[in-house]
Amino acid sequence: MSGNTLGTLFTLTSFGESHGPAIGGIVDGCPPGLALSAEDLQLDLDRRKPGTSRHVTQRNEADQVEILSGVFEGKTTGAPIGLLIRNTDQRSQDYSKIMNTFRPGHADYTYTQKYGIRDYRGGGRSSARETAVRVAAGAIAKKWLKEKYGIQIRGYLSQIGEIRIPFVSWDALSQEGNAFFSPNSEILPQLEAFMDQVRSERDSVGARITVVAEKVPVGLGEPIFDRLDADIAHAMMGINAVKGVEIGAGFDSIAQRGSEHCDELTPEGFATNHAGGILGGISSGQEIVVNVAFKPTSSIPQERRSINQAGEPVMMQTTGRHDPCVGIRATPIVEAMLALVLMDHALRHRAQNADVHSSVPRI
Amino acid sequence: MSGNTLGTLFTLTSFGESHGPAIGGIVDGCPPGLALSAEDLQLDLDRRKPGTSRHVTQRNEADQVEILSGVFEGKTTGAPIGLLIRNTDQRSQDYSKIMNTFRPGHADYTYTQKYGIRDYRGGGRSSARETAVRVAAGAIAKKWLKEKYGIQIRGYLSQIGEIRIPFVSWDALSQEGNAFFSPNSEILPQLEAFMDQVRSERDSVGARITVVAEKVPVGLGEPIFDRLDADIAHAMMGINAVKGVEIGAGFDSIAQRGSEHCDELTPEGFATNHAGGILGGISSGQEIVVNVAFKPTSSIPQERRSINQAGEPVMMQTTGRHDPCVGIRATPIVEAMLALVLMDHALRHRAQNADVHSSVPRI
Amino acid sequence: MSGNTLGTLFTLTSFGESHGPAIGGIVDGCPPGLALSAEDLQLDLDRRKPGTSRHVTQRNEADQVEILSGVFEGKTTGAPIGLLIRNTDQRSQDYSKIMNTFRPGHADYTYTQKYGIRDYRGGGRSSARETAVRVAAGAIAKKWLKEKYGIQIRGYLSQIGEIRIPFVSWDALSQEGNAFFSPNSEILPQLEAFMDQVRSERDSVGARITVVAEKVPVGLGEPIFDRLDADIAHAMMGINAVKGVEIGAGFDSIAQRGSEHCDELTPEGFATNHAGGILGGISSGQEIVVNVAFKPTSSIPQERRSINQAGEPVMMQTTGRHDPCVGIRATPIVEAMLALVLMDHALRHRAQNADVHSSVPRI
Amino acid sequence: MSGNTLGTLFTLTSFGESHGPAIGGIVDGCPPGLALSAEDLQLDLDRRKPGTSRHVTQRNEADQVEILSGVFEGKTTGAPIGLLIRNTDQRSQDYSKIMNTFRPGHADYTYTQKYGIRDYRGGGRSSARETAVRVAAGAIAKKWLKEKYGIQIRGYLSQIGEIRIPFVSWDALSQEGNAFFSPNSEILPQLEAFMDQVRSERDSVGARITVVAEKVPVGLGEPIFDRLDADIAHAMMGINAVKGVEIGAGFDSIAQRGSEHCDELTPEGFATNHAGGILGGISSGQEIVVNVAFKPTSSIPQERRSINQAGEPVMMQTTGRHDPCVGIRATPIVEAMLALVLMDHALRHRAQNADVHSSVPRI
Repeated sequence: MSGNTLGTLFTLTSFGESHGPAIGGIVDGCPPGLALSAEDLQLDLDRRKPGTSRHVTQRNEADQVEILSGVFEGKTTGAPIGLLIRNTDQRSQDYSKIMNTFRPGHADYTYTQKYGIRDYRGGGRSSARETAVRVAAGAIAKKWLKEKYGIQIRGYLSQIGEIRIPFVSWDALSQEGNAFFSPNSEILPQLEAFMDQVRSERDSVGARITVVAEKVPVGLGEPIFDRLDADIAHAMMGINAVKGVEIGAGFDSIAQRGSEHCDELTPEGFATNHAGGILGGISSGQEIVVNVAFKPTSSIPQERRSINQAGEPVMMQTTGRHDPCVGIRATPIVEAMLALVLMDHALRHRAQNADVHSSVPRI
Repeated sequence: MSGNTLGTLFTLTSFGESHGPAIGGIVDGCPPGLALSAEDLQLDLDRRKPGTSRHVTQRNEADQVEILSGVFEGKTTGAPIGLLIRNTDQRSQDYSKIMNTFRPGHADYTYTQKYGIRDYRGGGRSSARETAVRVAAGAIAKKWLKEKYGIQIRGYLSQIGEIRIPFVSWDALSQEGNAFFSPNSEILPQLEAFMDQVRSERDSVGARITVVAEKVPVGLGEPIFDRLDADIAHAMMGINAVKGVEIGAGFDSIAQRGSEHCDELTPEGFATNHAGGILGGISSGQEIVVNVAFKPTSSIPQERRSINQAGEPVMMQTTGRHDPCVGIRATPIVEAMLALVLMDHALRHRAQNADVHSSVPRI
Repeated sequence: MSGNTLGTLFTLTSFGESHGPAIGGIVDGCPPGLALSAEDLQLDLDRRKPGTSRHVTQRNEADQVEILSGVFEGKTTGAPIGLLIRNTDQRSQDYSKIMNTFRPGHADYTYTQKYGIRDYRGGGRSSARETAVRVAAGAIAKKWLKEKYGIQIRGYLSQIGEIRIPFVSWDALSQEGNAFFSPNSEILPQLEAFMDQVRSERDSVGARITVVAEKVPVGLGEPIFDRLDADIAHAMMGINAVKGVEIGAGFDSIAQRGSEHCDELTPEGFATNHAGGILGGISSGQEIVVNVAFKPTSSIPQERRSINQAGEPVMMQTTGRHDPCVGIRATPIVEAMLALVLMDHALRHRAQNADVHSSVPRI
Repeated sequence: MSGNTLGTLFTLTSFGESHGPAIGGIVDGCPPGLALSAEDLQLDLDRRKPGTSRHVTQRNEADQVEILSGVFEGKTTGAPIGLLIRNTDQRSQDYSKIMNTFRPGHADYTYTQKYGIRDYRGGGRSSARETAVRVAAGAIAKKWLKEKYGIQIRGYLSQIGEIRIPFVSWDALSQEGNAFFSPNSEILPQLEAFMDQVRSERDSVGARITVVAEKVPVGLGEPIFDRLDADIAHAMMGINAVKGVEIGAGFDSIAQRGSEHCDELTPEGFATNHAGGILGGISSGQEIVVNVAFKPTSSIPQERRSINQAGEPVMMQTTGRHDPCVGIRATPIVEAMLALVLMDHALRHRAQNADVHSSVPRI
């Protein structure tokens, strides 16, 4: 399968660079009969849009998505759904200084060595711009999963820099003035002060996003290689700037004892959820809980060492508009990736097991 | 693609349950002309074999692998390589007590709900037994990568329970009496005492395995979805008992500043390696460093709450032979998975980019 | 893999209905460094364009293709190439009579039963309109194959209705007034008279297209399932209206003797080419010769029996603009499909066998 | 996907050479709960077995298949099914004369050029021996399709050399003494005489196999690239010695008029079946009818021109045991391939469209 296609039955094939005419994608395998309009997708795209607070990039992208096919009289037909988002705000001149050098932390060096040619404008294909397509496609999956199973997928910022953000409520996320996707209103002033501090240092920080899927039916996942947790890890690690993925207790599992970690079963449900909703690579019916670690933004205003195309040492400095923390607007992307994986697995599971009726009660 | 196939060009398709007649697999896409024999595979299989110390399962598996095809006069032909390992030591009666209940932490419940039918003997397809096939296939990949590029893949135990194991040397791993894959001889007595303690508590602990690939050429990885780090995460999270994967600085990236995390480029090489050898989803030429978190062994001798097939509460207790820490013999499996991913990507890269000649020097 | 993606390494993912806003596709896996512009693709699209003679549909489609990504400074970058063709001439009202019934020979009935919903305007996704995307993608493949190996792919009309068209020359195809892709100028008046006759009968006929690929290197094809001939058959039978595919002597092989059919090898080359350039599923270096059988156009002005959505018998009649023989403009599509398959296989072959150096001379 | 895997959801991955220790395969994606035993598979394997008449190869293969996994207490579990068939009768010395030359019509030359190395014993991987695995896997698919939908798949010899064999009845196939899979008892003496004549000429002939699938539900096929007819063509053209595939009226469609070819719809069903059961790439509910053209056996006792490994001209002559017509025992293989494709599509269709309920009656 080509590197720009995700999924097996419900697939997203993506194209587009940050400074090309447009970005877009094709969603294939969507069941027919789902009510769908561009507005359904625009909602999640707007959550991702920069320019919504002083803490994120001041690029003004319209990010208006068009549905070019696969929908007739307001419903999906089962045909592939073409999505298009025109690029409107690029300001090429911001990048001309860096065309002969390689920005530390970015993919400039690796893309040049791999392909022998690089679109140096804004990161080209390696830019985070293309994640808008993933969010649009993820919105289709979210809608179907919601209507079919009642599945709800929500994420939040659980850590920024060294500050851990305790979960208070989902409601906090929709409150006015909360630009951080923080599930905690009280801590907002601390976060804002922290970000202002980082920005004044001309630096950046990393973040951790936690995403939760509720009401996932038991049975999703295709052992032994296309396990649900494996595909989730693949999807998350495939997001720009991600350096780690864990499920349930994750890395904390290392120091736990088996008597603590292994969730006991009772008729009322599992007693605990260290598994994070996945056992043996298959969903258990519990909440699926995933943590994703984002590295600090690579583009910072400080001078840094690099080399030029001849391999000679140079100093370079990024100017222009950047996010001091990419994690601040990554939540919709993380939610979208989880939705895409769950939808693909929902279809895969019923392909093979539509006739299965287990006599064991679901807990 | 079916759930029991890993890879795109260099693929492993696996079959077999712990208590069936045999386990095995088919490795497809191996380039012709590689010298290969069953002995090459047996080496790594023996590293994984239980019974080598009192700290691991006392099952006595022969684990003798047969090559059934794909090799002629000692060299691979390009045809698919069939691998077979007969199961010889199973002791079915150990598992008869658990056939009507679901062991906490195991896949019993999820498999039953997904398939409506479960091979209850020893975990069936969900047992870790099938990882022997991955190790055998990984040995083929390791050999080709070594001969073609000089790539070396080595792993070690970097943490067990709450004990962090500082890396001392690779040589420590080959020393007599080191049953832990510990890169540190001095700490062995502490590890052994710790394990004896855990066993006396009738409990288990988790572990962290670190694997390193050296001399990986720059350019491996297929953005944006089949990135090298994404496929590594997929492969690692797909190993039984894994709950987390991180690359380079991993979850530590969250609290780092961009001025620290983003590795500067110099003519002599990258100044640091927080990226863990992968930038923008493509190998940079630096060491690839991956950490994998293993949860504690699920089967412990303590009584635990569960339900039976009617959904009624029961107490259950696992007897028989078990690993108090699955991490202790997971290193060969982790190495094998990294080898399989790197080989697949080596072939994918040259498919598209065999004619690329970058003028930029490799650092 | 999703049903709207063709290929393994060099892939085309397609979207779009005949009466939607646009059709398009994403070509992924193209090696970097290929000079490419929209003009390169427009050439083959124009060959396919209706309205070029009175013998083909009088729809006036602009068929202007846009390249939205994957090309920088005139060369491919290795990133996916987004293609877009806006629909400009549809005349919806032509189809309103048929929305409640199913046109014989068309996919109306099967699409409705499969998806439960049908875009009845002009055949929706099942319309031949989307083949324009295949032609555009095929032009990319043709260019790379030509520049890399010198491969030339040309097709022609070898039979229409019961009239067999003897091959005279490739030059005949480019002559003015030859709207049939006939490799034979002398026979044109007979073909034109025949078509006028068929049209006056308010009927349609089938056609046979022959396509030849010259200078294909030996070694393309991935046995045993992804053989070159198998993938060619898949690509051709996947074109709308195709009912048969044969390679080399094809169905004539049945009555041949082995002493005649099996091409002998000599130092100057194979003595004959009944194999059609493919032996054991792998290209032999000889010309690849494929015949494709097209059924008569389904839409004819005669009244025909059908049923309505309630299953009751109705008479129906198609009006509007139609091709009395779809084969007349199918040649560019057949060429494109062969190019797509050959390019995919060229990449697959070098992935596994880039290091192979056979000592046997090529004949 | 690797070249030795067929299918997307229900897959067969195959391995093994004619003179290696064994051939075998892995069937993945089989729904759980299907009653299955080795005897179910042996039935179809025995139909294919050589040595059943003087008209086929006198190799005495046991062809006993073992099921190594995926079945528990007599039912499939959903886990991959490992199949193994040991090679028992090979007589290596038959092939030693040809190790330095390339047999006309065989894959010797192309395999050597592609891989740089060839297992010359009996054709190695290119031998028809491995089709036994396809037959075994096809038997699994046949069983599930029969039990789930009542689908029946039967094939027969419809032409041998220039002799057309009119269909009389399916019963004729099971009659004693019918070694030809001929659906016509009266013609048997003529066929036998013809074959004796061909053998006395030390030559071989081709054959045409017709396969029919009855009771296929409407809706199978994944447009636009994984159409049912396209996947059938892929599967059939992928059988050794096949040079052509047609569906329904096939190549006869070329000379038909649209008023004849396009099957009208009536409440009692389609009036005719020139479509061969597939419309727009999707099954219509009618019988699926496929014709497959087999070329004459390549190995004949006559002397023929070839070259040696140095490219010098040589004369060569095949001795040993051969089929004078490979078509005579190809029917079980053709049936198996159709079964594999239909099963894969049955699962794919329900993955996306399990919730579709069309109000249009099935005709």
